[in-house]
Amino acid sequence: MKEIATEPLTSSSEKAGLPPGTLVHVGKALETETRISVIEYDGLNYKEYIVQSIDKLLLHNKNKTTVWINIEGLTDTKTIESIGQNFGIHPLVLEDILNTNQRPRFEDYGNYLFIVLKALLLDKVGFSVNYEQTSIIVMENIVITFKEKQDNLFEPIKHRLSTSKGRIRVSGADYLAYAILDIVVDQYMIIGDSLVDVIEGIESELLANPSRRTLASIQSVKREAIFIRKTVSPVRELLVGIQHNESTLIQEKSLIYFRDVYDHSIRVIESMDSYRELVSGLLDIYLSSVSNKMNETMKVLTIFASIFIPLTFISGIYGMNFEYMPELKWKWSYPLIWIVFIIITVALLIFFKKKKWF
Amino acid sequence: MKEIATEPLTSSSEKAGLPPGTLVHVGKALETETRISVIEYDGLNYKEYIVQSIDKLLLHNKNKTTVWINIEGLTDTKTIESIGQNFGIHPLVLEDILNTNQRPRFEDYGNYLFIVLKALLLDKVGFSVNYEQTSIIVMENIVITFKEKQDNLFEPIKHRLSTSKGRIRVSGADYLAYAILDIVVDQYMIIGDSLVDVIEGIESELLANPSRRTLASIQSVKREAIFIRKTVSPVRELLVGIQHNESTLIQEKSLIYFRDVYDHSIRVIESMDSYRELVSGLLDIYLSSVSNKMNETMKVLTIFASIFIPLTFISGIYGMNFEYMPELKWKWSYPLIWIVFIIITVALLIFFKKKKWF
Amino acid sequence: MKEIATEPLTSSSEKAGLPPGTLVHVGKALETETRISVIEYDGLNYKEYIVQSIDKLLLHNKNKTTVWINIEGLTDTKTIESIGQNFGIHPLVLEDILNTNQRPRFEDYGNYLFIVLKALLLDKVGFSVNYEQTSIIVMENIVITFKEKQDNLFEPIKHRLSTSKGRIRVSGADYLAYAILDIVVDQYMIIGDSLVDVIEGIESELLANPSRRTLASIQSVKREAIFIRKTVSPVRELLVGIQHNESTLIQEKSLIYFRDVYDHSIRVIESMDSYRELVSGLLDIYLSSVSNKMNETMKVLTIFASIFIPLTFISGIYGMNFEYMPELKWKWSYPLIWIVFIIITVALLIFFKKKKWF
Amino acid sequence: MKEIATEPLTSSSEKAGLPPGTLVHVGKALETETRISVIEYDGLNYKEYIVQSIDKLLLHNKNKTTVWINIEGLTDTKTIESIGQNFGIHPLVLEDILNTNQRPRFEDYGNYLFIVLKALLLDKVGFSVNYEQTSIIVMENIVITFKEKQDNLFEPIKHRLSTSKGRIRVSGADYLAYAILDIVVDQYMIIGDSLVDVIEGIESELLANPSRRTLASIQSVKREAIFIRKTVSPVRELLVGIQHNESTLIQEKSLIYFRDVYDHSIRVIESMDSYRELVSGLLDIYLSSVSNKMNETMKVLTIFASIFIPLTFISGIYGMNFEYMPELKWKWSYPLIWIVFIIITVALLIFFKKKKWF
Amino acid sequence: MKEIATEPLTSSSEKAGLPPGTLVHVGKALETETRISVIEYDGLNYKEYIVQSIDKLLLHNKNKTTVWINIEGLTDTKTIESIGQNFGIHPLVLEDILNTNQRPRFEDYGNYLFIVLKALLLDKVGFSVNYEQTSIIVMENIVITFKEKQDNLFEPIKHRLSTSKGRIRVSGADYLAYAILDIVVDQYMIIGDSLVDVIEGIESELLANPSRRTLASIQSVKREAIFIRKTVSPVRELLVGIQHNESTLIQEKSLIYFRDVYDHSIRVIESMDSYRELVSGLLDIYLSSVSNKMNETMKVLTIFASIFIPLTFISGIYGMNFEYMPELKWKWSYPLIWIVFIIITVALLIFFKKKKWF
Repeated sequence: MKEIATEPLTSSSEKAGLPPGTLVHVGKALETETRISVIEYDGLNYKEYIVQSIDKLLLHNKNKTTVWINIEGLTDTKTIESIGQNFGIHPLVLEDILNTNQRPRFEDYGNYLFIVLKALLLDKVGFSVNYEQTSIIVMENIVITFKEKQDNLFEPIKHRLSTSKGRIRVSGADYLAYAILDIVVDQYMIIGDSLVDVIEGIESELLANPSRRTLASIQSVKREAIFIRKTVSPVRELLVGIQHNESTLIQEKSLIYFRDVYDHSIRVIESMDSYRELVSGLLDIYLSSVSNKMNETMKVLTIFASIFIPLTFISGIYGMNFEYMPELKWKWSYPLIWIVFIIITVALLIFFKKKKWF
Repeated sequence: MKEIATEPLTSSSEKAGLPPGTLVHVGKALETETRISVIEYDGLNYKEYIVQSIDKLLLHNKNKTTVWINIEGLTDTKTIESIGQNFGIHPLVLEDILNTNQRPRFEDYGNYLFIVLKALLLDKVGFSVNYEQTSIIVMENIVITFKEKQDNLFEPIKHRLSTSKGRIRVSGADYLAYAILDIVVDQYMIIGDSLVDVIEGIESELLANPSRRTLASIQSVKREAIFIRKTVSPVRELLVGIQHNESTLIQEKSLIYFRDVYDHSIRVIESMDSYRELVSGLLDIYLSSVSNKMNETMKVLTIFASIFIPLTFISGIYGMNFEYMPELKWKWSYPLIWIVFIIITVALLIFFKKKKWF
Repeated sequence: MKEIATEPLTSSSEKAGLPPGTLVHVGKALETETRISVIEYDGLNYKEYIVQSIDKLLLHNKNKTTVWINIEGLTDTKTIESIGQNFGIHPLVLEDILNTNQRPRFEDYGNYLFIVLKALLLDKVGFSVNYEQTSIIVMENIVITFKEKQDNLFEPIKHRLSTSKGRIRVSGADYLAYAILDIVVDQYMIIGDSLVDVIEGIESELLANPSRRTLASIQSVKREAIFIRKTVSPVRELLVGIQHNESTLIQEKSLIYFRDVYDHSIRVIESMDSYRELVSGLLDIYLSSVSNKMNETMKVLTIFASIFIPLTFISGIYGMNFEYMPELKWKWSYPLIWIVFIIITVALLIFFKKKKWF
Repeated sequence: MKEIATEPLTSSSEKAGLPPGTLVHVGKALETETRISVIEYDGLNYKEYIVQSIDKLLLHNKNKTTVWINIEGLTDTKTIESIGQNFGIHPLVLEDILNTNQRPRFEDYGNYLFIVLKALLLDKVGFSVNYEQTSIIVMENIVITFKEKQDNLFEPIKHRLSTSKGRIRVSGADYLAYAILDIVVDQYMIIGDSLVDVIEGIESELLANPSRRTLASIQSVKREAIFIRKTVSPVRELLVGIQHNESTLIQEKSLIYFRDVYDHSIRVIESMDSYRELVSGLLDIYLSSVSNKMNETMKVLTIFASIFIPLTFISGIYGMNFEYMPELKWKWSYPLIWIVFIIITVALLIFFKKKKWF
Repeated sequence: MKEIATEPLTSSSEKAGLPPGTLVHVGKALETETRISVIEYDGLNYKEYIVQSIDKLLLHNKNKTTVWINIEGLTDTKTIESIGQNFGIHPLVLEDILNTNQRPRFEDYGNYLFIVLKALLLDKVGFSVNYEQTSIIVMENIVITFKEKQDNLFEPIKHRLSTSKGRIRVSGADYLAYAILDIVVDQYMIIGDSLVDVIEGIESELLANPSRRTLASIQSVKREAIFIRKTVSPVRELLVGIQHNESTLIQEKSLIYFRDVYDHSIRVIESMDSYRELVSGLLDIYLSSVSNKMNETMKVLTIFASIFIPLTFISGIYGMNFEYMPELKWKWSYPLIWIVFIIITVALLIFFKKKKWF
């Protein structure tokens, strides 16, 4: 929980002042190398290979297979620019792909669809969420995806493509786009689940032994929850856009699948709201728990002080050096005063017991 | 109040990465066995029996009676798949029935309606809510319900079917669907009522003697309230959907009944909002109550310390061993100092009385 | 403020599981007897009488007068059922009249209008709000009202009917319905006003001397405010419904009056929101006020302890029994030490004065 | 800040139970006398005079000048009734003018427009807001305004009318109505500005020296902010109503001016929301500030007690009267014990210094 | 963080009571001089010069170049009035340009568009935001901008105009307007980013060592966040207005750019909401952190007092002067009592250790 998701916060203004349409990679450079992997498939065949340059890529795109071009790493702007030119993508879209501070959204450019959203990936160690902007271009038989770095986010899809001969192999580019969105939204759920685990952990710690460290954890998880929600929330709108769009690039029969992702996304957002509500209550519990502990401390102090201060006073009386103090001469004074000590102590203990202080 | 409803939270991501349409039961396996019970009825006849396999089931469906097939336990995916194939249910719907993390919703598939929502059942011991996903398929003369486990949720409906010859026996499949929804929403009200009891219990405890245990109770009831609300809230939308749908499967004359459940659901949701508001105030009362107690503790300490510390000082003065202390020789010093002690004590008591400290 | 409005909370689930249309009185039985009073009037005549059975009632309804039948007490379901049958009221409506947990709403049944809402009546002693469900059936020349018990809620209307010969006597059933709604909404305002008085009372108590009793009052008024709002809030919707309905039972010229009640209801709801905001701030003031008092207590303790503990230490020094303590022999030691005592005390008092502790 | 705006709260229910249309002045009687002043003007002429009775008023209304009749003081219901009859104003409108608890709104009655809203006037002394209901009747060439009391709210308009020969003199009744609304909304801004001053004052006080008086101020300003907002908020709706209305009484070319007031009103409401947010944070700062001070107090106590209590104990040891205590006989005991005292004190001071307690 | 953005708060009511259309500069006079700079450009040429009076300005506007007139400093109302008259701008628009308390908005006046919004500029020192009202008049080939003072807000645009021959040089007045809006919205992002830095700084301070200074910082950043949001929020609406307007002054092909700024503005507003949520949590952390520290203080006090007060009592016992106290004569009394002292101390330390107090 130490690393806080400051990335989507701090780098948004880097490009301020540059003319629109300038292709500059804005965002932390997560990957130095740009890797282009291509998957070509239809019901019968499946090919997967890495290409070095965009020229080689173009040689392949002849037969009626579905082609998925996956670009990982956005720092090599030239390669990306040449891809854009080859496939006729608008400069502003390319600019948005490279600027990794986009708000998730869907846009229909006629001969292609542009989807941009954030993939959330959980670090295995601690609770640290990585934000990776994922852009999807959907064309007739081609899907192009742009990711910030090489990771195994798309692994399950590739696995299904390479092994099964089911729906995904015969359903074309729109279904592939759906599968990609589905995997991203599924990751949101995983993040949500582990967020709950973290919240539960903090809660137990809070009730048991709240410390300054707990306070820092609460604040960090609160932040994380705020930013996850901010990232996830516009995806709903994005999916509404896809469902209501009238492009022929998404077939009628695929719409039911997009509706399914849409349902998932609503559920994720609703869950996020619940978690946020839980998180926002944590500080109150902290405060309550600390107050409770303080009260306990105070009771200990009060019991000790209230019993021994009067006794000390009494012993102080007979420590005075007045010449005429008759009690000092009495034979039973000393045992008697012990009895007085014991009576006072017992009386006060009963008093505090009645107050239910222990 | 110990068992917290973490189930709808933690298992949602289990299926992440699997291809859509794969029939896997997602969720805690609440029941190992899958039981299929069938109720056949019309105005005159009523039959109820258990079938082992789906083939036997199909033999019966000849006459114009209403048939209610109730499947309890979702782990036996094969049986459920064969039911789906026999009745022509879309694989995605079957998948949603088996995945017990669905968001409540209504969908019109032309020749059948699909309703999925959560039944909330209260455990008799403590305040623990069980979530059970309930899916309803409404066809021409057939209602199929899928539940996660065997319980007596539908008992009142069965009872009414078997005993009365009233409206329910002559009103067909849509009325039966209404009766099922009605019973589920009625359970929400019962949950709401017992939630109020729990809140009231905590409130009294809070005002009387807030402890760390109370703090844990508050947090747990808060959670419960958040998740109940999250579960109940989309039911409103579901019922709007049913009322506005144009399927012939729901007769004109039945709509008034669905409007009735709709009214109930609004009332339940409004109540839930009120309860949530009450719950959200509990932590504030806790804090106020603890602060109040701390103040009381502090007053006790201050009264004791403020009275006896000055007296001890005075006795300390005459415990000093200076050779030239004229008072030590005086005859009336000792009684006089007692008078001083008493005056100081009384003065301070009056001072604290004036401050209304006791 | 002791009696808390738990009634609308706890009894809502009593009827769960019963078939719809079963006429059972749901709710606390506020009245054992069912009293039917009839008022017949037109511009010229005014008659008021009590009838025992519904048969006698029917004899009267011949001439073109407006008839107002007021039923008080809902436990005698038979009488109410027979009224329903005589006037052709739908069983579901009768059921809603008897179930006193209805959400306020308006429904147009063609030949009659059904309005159900809650009358709020203030107990003269303390701040305790009584909820009474009031159902209104508006027909051509007849208004039937169903109340849970006998009280003087409708007294002002009866008085105006019997004394004045103004608008109310010549304006028919729809105007009477308006007058009834108006009186109910006016009661909301009275409740609101006394809620403000209660809040102001608690506020003064809070700033003067917050105690545990105040805390209980705050929580109870908060609850009350939440439930009043929940009750009043749907009345707005109800009145929108009346204004937008197209029934011929409400004359064009009466609509302006209903708009007037509508304006009142908005004002009441807006006031309720303001009060709720005030109430929700009370706990914060409580906490602040207690903290403030605790700080005062702490200051008293600190001043006493900080002055006398050092002095006691000094006197303790010269109470030691070392053989070689030169000061003990000095002649001016004792007066000198008194000067030291006084200097220390004055210095500390100045220190605390500077810190503005008193 | 002492006088709290309780007026709009307490008197709303006075008229409850009275028949609608009864002309009774509801609200605090702010003025005993009812003064009718008339201003008649066109591009060339300007006349201003006081009339005693309505009959005299009617004599003037012949030429094509714009006439502004301003009635101040609402207790003389007869005069107001006769004005109503002379100008053909609906009894319900007159009733609303007299009942000073109206919700701000706009209504089109065909041959006249009715606008009612609250003017907020700041008392010069302290922060006390006076609420004055202002009703405006706009006719062909006549504007009638009803105010609760005589004040200088309309002074600037009168001044502009009497001195300039600009737009206001030639633009007719609708422009005059705009000018009146503009002056009322401008007052809201002034109130808002002085609210900010008050908030800033409290804030400084809070950070410097929070006391019980500050707590009372916060609560009073909070109240004031809630009620100002409640009063100002419906004005937006009112102005939307005016802009969208299709009456010929408002000329096309005047609409741009009403849109201007509308823009102002939105800005006022948005500012009020900001202020409310600021105010609602004040209590939290109070609490934080008091907690902070309490911590300071506690540190003082702890430092004093922790240093002197151990020292007192040590001096107590050598005050014991055991016969066999070798140290008592040693020659260097006394200076040595002083060294011990100093070492302990310094050590503890370093300890507290390290904890950054001072 | 010392200078708080009170400017947009306090001066809004200055003009209250003045007739509309009076040209008075309302707002802090940020600049005494009014500077008029003109940039004339097309694809080929670029000219930039300062003009003294408006007459000279008019001489230039002949050829088909795009002309950008930038007026900095609003105090010289005469110059601005003459500009208004020369370009046929409505007096109310001129008035709004001069009154620097406008709500951001867009208005279509047929032959010109009027855009007014606030530019936010960050002071290099501390976190102090300067608000500068920026008005834009878009005509056929002319863009007129009005700014409150001379600063380098538009520097990047001028730079692009003078150096590049790209899109901005050939795209006309509407594209220039877009570029100006873009630069203003980009500044919002920069403000947002530095707001995050400030929040993070306060957070660390809070967790480490919360002081009264931190409290003041929190309040000041809260204020700032509230006012920034209030300023930024209406810009979204403004941009929706531009996109939906049907003026021919904005070309079809430019709309995509305005949509781009719109997307940015949404992202800024969403970020602002997140920041506000973070800020609003700061006070809670402060309170929690102070409570935590107080508990620590209390523990120190309690440990010291609870150990030494009983010991002092014991030493007090043997400081009593009773004649018959057998222990005083025993030989091993003194070492024994030391053992007792040590046992008590160790026992209490173990007790506190078990309570996890240190």
